[in-house]
Amino acid sequence: MLDRVDEIIDTFISELNDKRSRELFEKISSGKKLRAKLILKIAPNSKDAPFLAAIVELIHAASLLHDDVIDDALTRRGNSSINALFGNKSAIMLGDILYSKAFYELAALDKEVAKVVSNAVVKLSVGELMDVELSKEFNEDEDLYFDMIYKKTASLIEAASKSAALLEGVDSEKFALYGKNLGLAFQIIDDILDITAESSKLGKPSMHDFFEGKVTLPYIKMYKKLDEDGKKRLLKLYKKELNESETGWIREKMKSTEAIKESVEIVNFLANEALLSIKEYQKDDLERVVRDMVEREY
Amino acid sequence: MLDRVDEIIDTFISELNDKRSRELFEKISSGKKLRAKLILKIAPNSKDAPFLAAIVELIHAASLLHDDVIDDALTRRGNSSINALFGNKSAIMLGDILYSKAFYELAALDKEVAKVVSNAVVKLSVGELMDVELSKEFNEDEDLYFDMIYKKTASLIEAASKSAALLEGVDSEKFALYGKNLGLAFQIIDDILDITAESSKLGKPSMHDFFEGKVTLPYIKMYKKLDEDGKKRLLKLYKKELNESETGWIREKMKSTEAIKESVEIVNFLANEALLSIKEYQKDDLERVVRDMVEREY
Repeated sequence: MLDRVDEIIDTFISELNDKRSRELFEKISSGKKLRAKLILKIAPNSKDAPFLAAIVELIHAASLLHDDVIDDALTRRGNSSINALFGNKSAIMLGDILYSKAFYELAALDKEVAKVVSNAVVKLSVGELMDVELSKEFNEDEDLYFDMIYKKTASLIEAASKSAALLEGVDSEKFALYGKNLGLAFQIIDDILDITAESSKLGKPSMHDFFEGKVTLPYIKMYKKLDEDGKKRLLKLYKKELNESETGWIREKMKSTEAIKESVEIVNFLANEALLSIKEYQKDDLERVVRDMVEREY
Repeated sequence: MLDRVDEIIDTFISELNDKRSRELFEKISSGKKLRAKLILKIAPNSKDAPFLAAIVELIHAASLLHDDVIDDALTRRGNSSINALFGNKSAIMLGDILYSKAFYELAALDKEVAKVVSNAVVKLSVGELMDVELSKEFNEDEDLYFDMIYKKTASLIEAASKSAALLEGVDSEKFALYGKNLGLAFQIIDDILDITAESSKLGKPSMHDFFEGKVTLPYIKMYKKLDEDGKKRLLKLYKKELNESETGWIREKMKSTEAIKESVEIVNFLANEALLSIKEYQKDDLERVVRDMVEREY
């Protein structure tokens, strides 16, 4: 069924009737299509599910195009980003094209579905702006962090699950909660891996978030546990290009303060909440999505 | 009724529930609201008209935010642009927020209206990308220029007119044609004024388009009429910061080749087409919009 989603996306791009858009689109490295998979698994009996999945993946692609411009990211999924290949202007405009095409197609679907998905894009955009704001100064407020990652990352996964449940005619609030908690866990894992994984695995430099000004959950947790000298040292490294001794110090402190451990515990808690909210449906494949995401080496 | 549109826009911004979005939005210099005016004039009997007008103005504001990032424009309507005040990142994200909020609200309207408006945003974005592409090298192809300005500028004015006609229950194709031709004329006037008007009137440097790589209609017409030496000289000035003798030469040649005159004739032709398409409705106020736009000093 994912092939069907790709076919629909391909049709969307052809309908733009613009050679340059096609050319740029072809250079986007395709991802794991988590959102499309969720939609197809939640709404196996809906004829609109592949169509909705294609729309949501288009929205996700658009958001990543703008995200990479915002973050000055030169790579995405280990390949060159569109802004690196063709410049910021083309990346911004291709993002706008994909967004608007997705919204155009969304108008053909059920109104409630259209509202759920478009409302998520509002949140996603507000979340990106929050991310920009929070990256200006060292943020030690966990609530702000959670609000931001909910909007920036979890809202679209929540909307994918919820809208698919609407199509399938199952309890949309329960599936919304599944998607929300899955999305939060997903972002925190991403934030942990930025610290603990090898840069070769990440496809980008390790600890790049902190350099970009992003004080993610493990940093907030670590900061709180550090003594005054440690706090000062961490603040000095904020937004700096780090050498090996500095990244080594951060890694060591992430361990000794149990910042990573506590972050992983939150991931596990969220994953469990996600599983609980749809327990009654006994959806093995949706449970596996959660387990595959969580059960890994940090 | 324009006050009502402003109130609705204000409500949209409040509903974002984000202080920073509000703060940035307040700094956008408000324009003449051409699109809102058209909608209100075309659909005086529709209760949804002010709501549609607010949505279309939000979309227009979003497109200008991204347009100013694309063009590295530091001013807009004589004031500092959002990208100049708060940086490209905030301008891109505020644009995404306004776009998505507009699309969210659009989902509450008639499906056909939602399709017309969202399809215009697809065209608008493709048009912006075309503009970026056409600005890379000297473009002497008039057809490409017209296709680009139709998409970039006229499509949303066309959609505003068409969707308002749908709400009012009058011939939407005729009003679409009115909006399209009005929009084309509007953009060509803008392109002429960039050459002929004082920079104090423009609120930006004169002949900035050419510096930005935009070969607008008068330049295309002038280029065709120049002899080989003139062509070479014009190509040499392309994308260059121009001194007074160079802008003087361009102005002189714009006159002697009748490039401005021919461009104005096309504006008049388009304006007349706009008037003809809705003649039977005897809408004085819509005719005045066209005349006010066209009857001016170039």
